[in-house]
Amino acid sequence: MQTLIAKIDAFVAERNWDRYHAPKNLAMALSVEVAEIVEIFQWMNEDQSRMPDKTTRAHLHDEIGDVLIYLTMLARKLDIDPLEAAHAKLEKNRIKYPAVNASAKFPHGRF
Amino acid sequence: MQTLIAKIDAFVAERNWDRYHAPKNLAMALSVEVAEIVEIFQWMNEDQSRMPDKTTRAHLHDEIGDVLIYLTMLARKLDIDPLEAAHAKLEKNRIKYPAVNASAKFPHGRF
Amino acid sequence: MQTLIAKIDAFVAERNWDRYHAPKNLAMALSVEVAEIVEIFQWMNEDQSRMPDKTTRAHLHDEIGDVLIYLTMLARKLDIDPLEAAHAKLEKNRIKYPAVNASAKFPHGRF
Amino acid sequence: MQTLIAKIDAFVAERNWDRYHAPKNLAMALSVEVAEIVEIFQWMNEDQSRMPDKTTRAHLHDEIGDVLIYLTMLARKLDIDPLEAAHAKLEKNRIKYPAVNASAKFPHGRF
Repeated sequence: MQTLIAKIDAFVAERNWDRYHAPKNLAMALSVEVAEIVEIFQWMNEDQSRMPDKTTRAHLHDEIGDVLIYLTMLARKLDIDPLEAAHAKLEKNRIKYPAVNASAKFPHGRF
Repeated sequence: MQTLIAKIDAFVAERNWDRYHAPKNLAMALSVEVAEIVEIFQWMNEDQSRMPDKTTRAHLHDEIGDVLIYLTMLARKLDIDPLEAAHAKLEKNRIKYPAVNASAKFPHGRF
Repeated sequence: MQTLIAKIDAFVAERNWDRYHAPKNLAMALSVEVAEIVEIFQWMNEDQSRMPDKTTRAHLHDEIGDVLIYLTMLARKLDIDPLEAAHAKLEKNRIKYPAVNASAKFPHGRF
Repeated sequence: MQTLIAKIDAFVAERNWDRYHAPKNLAMALSVEVAEIVEIFQWMNEDQSRMPDKTTRAHLHDEIGDVLIYLTMLARKLDIDPLEAAHAKLEKNRIKYPAVNASAKFPHGRF
């Protein structure tokens, strides 16, 4: 992750793109990249989405990459470490949705 | 990232949530979390978004965490490493948008 | 639709909200409202989504209302009539995806 | 709106696309179309977004059309009239955010 952050910082600086990178704009760009993933799955059913073919998987690989790039750009601008934020939020979610060791069947909560 | 992946796998298994985690559904959940970030910025202008107050920054910290959690869940289901995908896509973007060493001022490209 | 437009114009004017209503911001707000619809369906399968219960349907009624409100606000700011735009685009889609009278079974196109 | 609904019903029937049109899928498609609007504005600032050039405005005209088409498809599947839903929600919003006749300057509420 640290390497990715360093490469992204260099990438943006080399192209003089920081002026576009207000967090507001990066949030928009991030949502657009995520929509590209949603689009891949929109007419598939859930079972089909569990077994994408080779071309689809390659497309998803690209788009997941773009989403993480933009998420990292956004987090950087806000001086947030995305991995640290994820670990912290997972702990909050763990407390909010305690696992029950008996075979618990409860609906997926809302983080 | 490997630790996050392991923790997420355990979190999902403990709650018997895997059955909800078709990639189609995870893509939807990811888009909903990103929308929570967009919502924070929607009425701010760009300058305001560069300087969020303490409460806003804490809210963003949570949401960035949730976005990375869902992105990681989705990538795992597709046997994709999100960090590796980001590095690979950054290289593709580097080639698609070459940096020009003279003070290049060109519009932000579309990844 | 004309009545809705008039009511929305009055609603915004009465609250002095026009200053927030740059199309950029309205596009963000629209995406956030649509995410609220996505959220309702994210853990359902397709069959469940075809038969929402009474509470869910009422929730969807609200959110569909909000989406049309924001879409209309955005279109107004750009001097676009959303109904006219929809009719025009449906014609373009009709040409792009010709219906074949024999029992055509082809995948859903991308508009 | 009634004409649009009738045309959309015919369009879908002619192409045998109803089988893809579970509300879950239509919600995803709707979010993807909205993202196409977000993408148009993502690197612009607010003032630029208030004055799109001719090409941009034509692009927005198409995308606003697509958003209303998908919103109408989704509403139809749920037996909801989008115009009626918008009118009803505007009344709820009116009560939730009362206008104050003195020159009220208050932040844009969250619908």
